[in-house]
Amino acid sequence: MTTGDGGPSPRRRGRPSRTEAATGPDARTRILESARTEFAERGYDKTSMRGIAKAAGVDAALVHHYFGTKDEVFAAAVEVSFEPTLELSDVLGSSTEGLGERLAGYFIEVWENPVSRAPLLAIMRSAMTHEAAAKVLRVFVLRRLLGRIAEQLDVPDATFRAELAASHMVGIAVLRYVIQAEPLASADPEKIIAMVAPTLQRYLTEG
Amino acid sequence: MTTGDGGPSPRRRGRPSRTEAATGPDARTRILESARTEFAERGYDKTSMRGIAKAAGVDAALVHHYFGTKDEVFAAAVEVSFEPTLELSDVLGSSTEGLGERLAGYFIEVWENPVSRAPLLAIMRSAMTHEAAAKVLRVFVLRRLLGRIAEQLDVPDATFRAELAASHMVGIAVLRYVIQAEPLASADPEKIIAMVAPTLQRYLTEG
Repeated sequence: MTTGDGGPSPRRRGRPSRTEAATGPDARTRILESARTEFAERGYDKTSMRGIAKAAGVDAALVHHYFGTKDEVFAAAVEVSFEPTLELSDVLGSSTEGLGERLAGYFIEVWENPVSRAPLLAIMRSAMTHEAAAKVLRVFVLRRLLGRIAEQLDVPDATFRAELAASHMVGIAVLRYVIQAEPLASADPEKIIAMVAPTLQRYLTEG
Repeated sequence: MTTGDGGPSPRRRGRPSRTEAATGPDARTRILESARTEFAERGYDKTSMRGIAKAAGVDAALVHHYFGTKDEVFAAAVEVSFEPTLELSDVLGSSTEGLGERLAGYFIEVWENPVSRAPLLAIMRSAMTHEAAAKVLRVFVLRRLLGRIAEQLDVPDATFRAELAASHMVGIAVLRYVIQAEPLASADPEKIIAMVAPTLQRYLTEG
């Protein structure tokens, strides 16, 4: 859900159909927002290109035009969920000093934010239960995200190490936000980051 | 799982059914095996006590007799999946020296074994998508498993630390066995254990 708690949406401009407002960069943003909401509420399997188009107030052809296939909209919706407030490139920075802490903090921040958490939860649920969604996550998302992290590293098996770091954060998300196991579910984010940062730092920098 | 591999059940009391073969420790073991298979194939939601009883060739009353509720059969099926070849108490041992390596090796072994992997995958899928299954995992399984690990530890926040360790292993299971992201999916188990063991050791022993 992207429009806050019932307040007026900053993006509300309407005109679902053939006019100017239904195309251009605004339309692309609206499609992506609708895709996130649709995937979050219905899961991968039950979300359709038509449904996304309808929710965005555009023609289904425009969704195809901007994104191609459903898998590609899904991948774009996952990626946009990972960049809610800041760019991953800023998190990665130019040095590996403090990288573990920056990545742990970034990941927790993304999950603590309900706007990005809802679609991420939906994506994980879809990927756990539908091979098509798992494949999108594997091929479009993980490969790209891990690739971006790995290319900053100067260690052997950089992708394997980036993946181990990612696995830890994924597992924390599962236990904290999905299973809601205590005491992790109620732990202060800073406490989690402080414990996890040295682990990520070791994986990503120590040869 | 508390009764070992087919040894006589300490809980054996009543005679809810008719023939000898349909009761006794063999029946209990058969019920548990059927429960694992049913949960693995149908998921938590669609598995019923009647279905488990039918698959085990016993009366539904016997399933209730041995396990109580569906949630309790589910919990027992999860626990038995975690003890395929060796007891967790042996893994924990009497000293924390090498504990990280023993736990990492144990966890990977459980997941590498197809017999235990199938029901565990089903359980995780169910817990990701159904709150009832998540609750069983949270209340019956994690609390008990983490409790058993935490009581061996001599660090502050022992349960929190045991949970961080568990989260890492859960995340590895998600990426390696569910999403099947490379290179982790094809990595040599020994390589994963070697990288992860120091992390678990730090969480579980360093104050």
